[in-house]
Amino acid sequence: MSEQQPVAGEGVTARLAAFVTDTRLDQIPAVTQHAAKRALVDVVGVALGAAEEPAVRIAREVARALGGAPQATLWGTAERTSLIHAARVAGIMAHVLDYDDTHLPTILHPSAPVAAAALPVAEWRRASGAELLTAFVVGFEVAARVALSVCPAHYDAGWHVTGTAGVFGAAAAAARLLGLDARHTAWALGAAAAQAAGLREMFGSMCKSLHAGKAAENGVLAALLAREGFTAPAEPLAGRRGFGAVLSTRFDPAALTAALGERWEVHRNAFKPYACGVVTHPAIDAARQLRAQGYEAAALARLELHVHPLVLELCGKRAPQTGLEGKFSVYHCAAVGFLDDAAGPAQFTDAVVRRPDVVALRERVTATAEPALAEDQARLVAHLVDGRPVEIFVPHASGTLENPLSDEALAAKFRAVTAPVLGAERAGALLGRLWRLEAEPDAAALAALLAA
Amino acid sequence: MSEQQPVAGEGVTARLAAFVTDTRLDQIPAVTQHAAKRALVDVVGVALGAAEEPAVRIAREVARALGGAPQATLWGTAERTSLIHAARVAGIMAHVLDYDDTHLPTILHPSAPVAAAALPVAEWRRASGAELLTAFVVGFEVAARVALSVCPAHYDAGWHVTGTAGVFGAAAAAARLLGLDARHTAWALGAAAAQAAGLREMFGSMCKSLHAGKAAENGVLAALLAREGFTAPAEPLAGRRGFGAVLSTRFDPAALTAALGERWEVHRNAFKPYACGVVTHPAIDAARQLRAQGYEAAALARLELHVHPLVLELCGKRAPQTGLEGKFSVYHCAAVGFLDDAAGPAQFTDAVVRRPDVVALRERVTATAEPALAEDQARLVAHLVDGRPVEIFVPHASGTLENPLSDEALAAKFRAVTAPVLGAERAGALLGRLWRLEAEPDAAALAALLAA
Repeated sequence: MSEQQPVAGEGVTARLAAFVTDTRLDQIPAVTQHAAKRALVDVVGVALGAAEEPAVRIAREVARALGGAPQATLWGTAERTSLIHAARVAGIMAHVLDYDDTHLPTILHPSAPVAAAALPVAEWRRASGAELLTAFVVGFEVAARVALSVCPAHYDAGWHVTGTAGVFGAAAAAARLLGLDARHTAWALGAAAAQAAGLREMFGSMCKSLHAGKAAENGVLAALLAREGFTAPAEPLAGRRGFGAVLSTRFDPAALTAALGERWEVHRNAFKPYACGVVTHPAIDAARQLRAQGYEAAALARLELHVHPLVLELCGKRAPQTGLEGKFSVYHCAAVGFLDDAAGPAQFTDAVVRRPDVVALRERVTATAEPALAEDQARLVAHLVDGRPVEIFVPHASGTLENPLSDEALAAKFRAVTAPVLGAERAGALLGRLWRLEAEPDAAALAALLAA
Repeated sequence: MSEQQPVAGEGVTARLAAFVTDTRLDQIPAVTQHAAKRALVDVVGVALGAAEEPAVRIAREVARALGGAPQATLWGTAERTSLIHAARVAGIMAHVLDYDDTHLPTILHPSAPVAAAALPVAEWRRASGAELLTAFVVGFEVAARVALSVCPAHYDAGWHVTGTAGVFGAAAAAARLLGLDARHTAWALGAAAAQAAGLREMFGSMCKSLHAGKAAENGVLAALLAREGFTAPAEPLAGRRGFGAVLSTRFDPAALTAALGERWEVHRNAFKPYACGVVTHPAIDAARQLRAQGYEAAALARLELHVHPLVLELCGKRAPQTGLEGKFSVYHCAAVGFLDDAAGPAQFTDAVVRRPDVVALRERVTATAEPALAEDQARLVAHLVDGRPVEIFVPHASGTLENPLSDEALAAKFRAVTAPVLGAERAGALLGRLWRLEAEPDAAALAALLAA
């Protein structure tokens, strides 16, 4: 068919490609670089913390059986494998705990696919930390821009945007680290579009994290193919039968390039303080604040939670029996928040869900939907055994843009999840190197710290 | 969100999985087995004929650099590589010439992704020819059923169904050859859904064939993951946010299972006699029939073609300058059909497009759109230099279901494309073994013939 109509958004892929190739680290504001390092600290920590998850063990087994050149570290092991296996496994690791960051405007989890592609390629190329940081920033930006151009219609329709948009960010980061020019980078974005996949139906199964792993892997493959001259169409994003038109009923090509290189999406990124459904987080904050006031469990007759209606819809499990069910129980979340002053992976094991003190307190928690509250708000009325009420209001849950996790809190999360895998000393060393990433001379030396 | 509504099509994935695991070769009618062997002969030949295509050379280079265990033959070379590299490269090979088969109801090219997954896995497992044939039949059927369940809306929306549905067929064939039970096969189909991708925007670039390669690769990966217990949702196809609902506005779950195991989609598969746009095929038939009547080029004053209007829209290039442009020129197609009695890859090189006798005859061809003609029809009026007209009418082009290629014609196509790569003797041996596939004791021995 002759298709001569002008296409809205023509040239956007070329502009994105030029952004990927041309952005220099000194053009990225210091605060933006810092925001990107926060994302890297968070995602590397969360990934290492997942090293022994069943989905990860399986992905690693399959990679071992397939074999590959020893190009990059298989995170959390002493082994090395090919770039695509390393990227796939790292992407699964980064996302499987549902503990990684969120680009709030789109619900994209950008760092899992982008970091899982960038770190192995940087390791293989022995890129400097500055190059790795630059590649991560541009990859993050591309993933977020692609997500913005198709969301919310795209996510609402059933796409898991971490897979579909993530592959573009992974391809961009890999292309940058491979030193591709703009033409070849555009081809890499094209090959990314050819591989873009991910369905929300996968939620609740291991295939959810496969999306992040495949996005990372396919982005690396796209860049490797493009480097050798594997061609793609001129407008994989904005073409008539391109990504935007086919995967969204409301594709906005302007979102891909508006203020590109001036506004940085990494500033709209949020980090999870707790390893459970994000809507439970204000309730956990409230429980921890109650504990901070010095009360003990024995003093509490009843904890009366008032929460946004979505909390009960998504996380209303009264009597969870497994760790996974605990993540969807605001009652369990509040109980461990009070008792352990934490709600990390350690609070969502089968054992903790059945721990007598947890069960006892959980049974004294009630939750009422209150439409006047925002999603990031909660009100807790603690009825003490002596009859007094203590009231706590959380206006913005920790981890939101209004109440962001401090660097110290991110570091504590990093140490908590990585120490069991790396040991405390190495975990601390890795953390220090990530905070000073721009000064790192050799990404391969950094990656060596990801081995266990 | 609570999602308790019953889902139309619930259970279809489990039924497909049971079909994949339970179908025995003796339940597949002999004519169906033969139709499947025709598809294998065609796709293996077409793939080997593409061994030196630029897209294939690049894909091979990238696979070499990534490395892998020597599990399967890298077709057309003396090398072995891992299953996923072998499948990816084979899938690209099978589709890059646009010369592979077509499931007519959906425009799916089923054999490329399914064979490119099945043969490497069969080789690795040292499956028997009978097992390989069974896996190919069920994989073909699954790919075609998935395509039927979402087409034509799916294809019309811009999806390249060979990528999106192909991955299910590849996963099914691989799961069968790996001996997965129904539960694990269903997980493989789920992981296939998580990776389903492919956009028609890629047409005209190397990324078109990447769709077939990735479908094969991802299908194999899906089965390998599932084998180790990597979980997927119960209804990846028919779930609320599953493949059907998200990738089609008219998902028909009944198409997945209606008369499954009784009606076989491989009988609706067509083979291309010519390596060019399918709409030019009736004109080529007419030119070859004119030649068969004993006329020589010097006797022809003018060739007046009457064709379906789509021919001029899709393949109306008057003066092609490259081999690729020649594929989209009905004038060139008719000229080489008459002069060479063929329109294989050899007739679509840059050199042949510029050959003086071809150019001279091409310039004497006219083509008129005639809405009364069907797409598979053409009328040719040859005006001889002595003034006489000779008229030829083609009611159904060769390669259609009404005028299928004979086994002999498929064999001739196979020999023509494979002899330059394998040599005539080995090509003949491979062909003979494929025709007797059910008697082959060891797929690895067969695969050794795919090495060059």
